Amino acid sequence: MFIAMNRFRVAPGAEADFEHMWLTRDVYLRTVPGFESFQLLRGPAGEDHVLYASHTVWATKAAFEDWTRSQSFRDAHRNAGQATTRSLYNGPPQFEGFEVLQTVDRE
Amino acid sequence: MFIAMNRFRVAPGAEADFEHMWLTRDVYLRTVPGFESFQLLRGPAGEDHVLYASHTVWATKAAFEDWTRSQSFRDAHRNAGQATTRSLYNGPPQFEGFEVLQTVDRE
Repeated sequence: MFIAMNRFRVAPGAEADFEHMWLTRDVYLRTVPGFESFQLLRGPAGEDHVLYASHTVWATKAAFEDWTRSQSFRDAHRNAGQATTRSLYNGPPQFEGFEVLQTVDRE
Repeated sequence: MFIAMNRFRVAPGAEADFEHMWLTRDVYLRTVPGFESFQLLRGPAGEDHVLYASHTVWATKAAFEDWTRSQSFRDAHRNAGQATTRSLYNGPPQFEGFEVLQTVDRE
């Protein structure tokens, strides 16, 4: 299992616009091979930003990488570089991919 | 839903010891109220560390906070500050708690 996270440093005051953009977007993931689940996360506030993260669980790292080369990925990121979108952020998003080494479930 | 992550910067060469410590530990979480699942994650390598993260899903932020005040939490973290453990890291762990704003599941 593989978790792909993108960390977004959202400028103070832009939280509502950022959340609206994400919560109203078209979602292209549901039928992508290897996709398991997506979550939008709101994390801690720093001095000059609020941390948000997209959090996507994939069956394997290979399934995630296949998706990044697909038309579905290009459709999903068509607007990501626009000036209106960039102004929401303090700096570019930071990608981190995680391999799952151990899972413990509720008894 | 709430995700509690602790980010660990593991010193180069200490990865096997760090993973062994985690994978052989006693797990006290399985019956804690509000606990849903735990995962140990290996993330990207930086110049002076490899990023690992503990990733725990809770029903609510309140359930997580209740656990941090419990005997179960003290048992689980009894050895966390020992010198033998500290030497695995470049710097202290960094806690980040995330509120889940949206979930998208596979179709």
